[in-house]
Amino acid sequence: MADPERIRRVACVGAGVIGGGWVAHFLARGYQVTAWDPAPDHRERLQRLVDAAWPALVELGPAEGASRDNLTFASTLDEAVAGAEFVQESAPEDLDLKRDLLARIDAATPAEVVISSSTSGYGMTEMQRDCPNPQRLVVGHPFNPPYLIPLVEVVGGQRTEHRFVEQAARFFEAAGKSVITMDREVPGFIANRLQEAMWREALHMVAEGEATVEQIDTSITEGPGLRWPLFGPCLTFHLAGGEGGMAHMLDHFGPSLKSPWTRLEAPELTDELRQRMVDGCADADGRDIAELVAERDRAVIAVLRAMREIRSAS
Amino acid sequence: MADPERIRRVACVGAGVIGGGWVAHFLARGYQVTAWDPAPDHRERLQRLVDAAWPALVELGPAEGASRDNLTFASTLDEAVAGAEFVQESAPEDLDLKRDLLARIDAATPAEVVISSSTSGYGMTEMQRDCPNPQRLVVGHPFNPPYLIPLVEVVGGQRTEHRFVEQAARFFEAAGKSVITMDREVPGFIANRLQEAMWREALHMVAEGEATVEQIDTSITEGPGLRWPLFGPCLTFHLAGGEGGMAHMLDHFGPSLKSPWTRLEAPELTDELRQRMVDGCADADGRDIAELVAERDRAVIAVLRAMREIRSAS
Repeated sequence: MADPERIRRVACVGAGVIGGGWVAHFLARGYQVTAWDPAPDHRERLQRLVDAAWPALVELGPAEGASRDNLTFASTLDEAVAGAEFVQESAPEDLDLKRDLLARIDAATPAEVVISSSTSGYGMTEMQRDCPNPQRLVVGHPFNPPYLIPLVEVVGGQRTEHRFVEQAARFFEAAGKSVITMDREVPGFIANRLQEAMWREALHMVAEGEATVEQIDTSITEGPGLRWPLFGPCLTFHLAGGEGGMAHMLDHFGPSLKSPWTRLEAPELTDELRQRMVDGCADADGRDIAELVAERDRAVIAVLRAMREIRSAS
Repeated sequence: MADPERIRRVACVGAGVIGGGWVAHFLARGYQVTAWDPAPDHRERLQRLVDAAWPALVELGPAEGASRDNLTFASTLDEAVAGAEFVQESAPEDLDLKRDLLARIDAATPAEVVISSSTSGYGMTEMQRDCPNPQRLVVGHPFNPPYLIPLVEVVGGQRTEHRFVEQAARFFEAAGKSVITMDREVPGFIANRLQEAMWREALHMVAEGEATVEQIDTSITEGPGLRWPLFGPCLTFHLAGGEGGMAHMLDHFGPSLKSPWTRLEAPELTDELRQRMVDGCADADGRDIAELVAERDRAVIAVLRAMREIRSAS
């Protein structure tokens, strides 16, 4: 098994919006990238995507040696994965297609190489079913566009060996991503579950005439969306509790969990759940509430200013 | 009824975290503000809050004539509202308390003055029950901190006259807020419903051991949270559809609405709902997908850079 920090050659199988985004990301981090896609015009589309992304990647600061010239278009799947030290699959979301493709990748890829799938929702257990070497298959779920959004959620299937999950996580970190390694398979992983809950509530509201599409978007971009780049929903509510933090917030606003503020029923706020939330916020940092509030305010100001500039430029 | 753009004197009843945040906002926008709170130490606490917020407000650009000296501490509720042209109530979330307080404010406030409540979830219909002049009571729901987050959701109760809802919306806009005027009362209004759906899914995940508090926060701050300051959930998914936009996104990812990606059941994706979503995204702007993608990328880069600076400074 290669040292994840020393991996230099990555194969990207499937080069649409997500796969192409991965290609751009890996190129910007200085990797040699081989891409393959069954679509007849995939070379032109992929080159356009990489060229469109490149100015942003240059602005963010590419790795030493990063070059668009490090991209090779493979003519066959076998050619794409033959010399790869890491494989990222980004085919369309179709379980049969993924099962078949992953089994073919698995058969063609050198042993001990991690094969990672960009799937946005299938579990690896169901996808690895037909693979001869399922132990090295993991989910490495990115967010669009993968060359800008740092998050990758990494999780194995029932037949994945833990060392390959660790290998994948270390490789993605070395490649500049923010990695969440999950202990167990959960449909939609973490971020998609959270945004899907919000999305479904939004769809219900539009369906029932409770809000328009524009009102929904404005309520986020002019409201809580301004806080979320710095602090997620938990730390945000930790601050909503004032000096008492999450504990006070749950004690004070806990009853709103019984309110019909969304169609999603809340869990029972047991002592155990309360304690997990409080401990989770206390663990997150050693800063007190006043420091966190000051940091949040600086972040909101910076975000407000950046959005003003971007909107006035367009 | 005063011209909302000419209002200069605002009364803030209740001066805790939210009420005090309103005081800071109105002072920064150049208003004369009178504050009252029954807590014995409210003057010192309010002064501390305003002083802590002021540097941020100066940085964002205060209105001409804005000064902390324009704050008056009233000794009684009657004194606070006597000369007010607009009243913002921000008492604790307790329905009986709000009903009683709003009735007292209503009795003491000059006729034709809008009385607005910061409630985060009660409907005005239930709060205005005991008011002699319910026609001028509205909800004006801010987000914390009100001096930084622009959103205010405005909605009346069954006994509110529409002209007062319009008056409130125009006043808040003149005071520099981003206003959503809702046609009907919905528990939790809009933004709270959306973030509450995400929050409840997060609580379920922690309760079931599917994710930790830290993983939940990271999944947002390193993932979709970076997109939401510019585009809300609908326009974000409009872009996820590639050149086909929302229509393609719903046709392609529609089946994921049947997936167990959150505990919230999705609505049926009827032709009518599909069309509302598509029309809502088309209405939002005349820019094509490529322009929107470029704008999103600029925004994500700006947000990533701002967060890097803020984290490295703390």
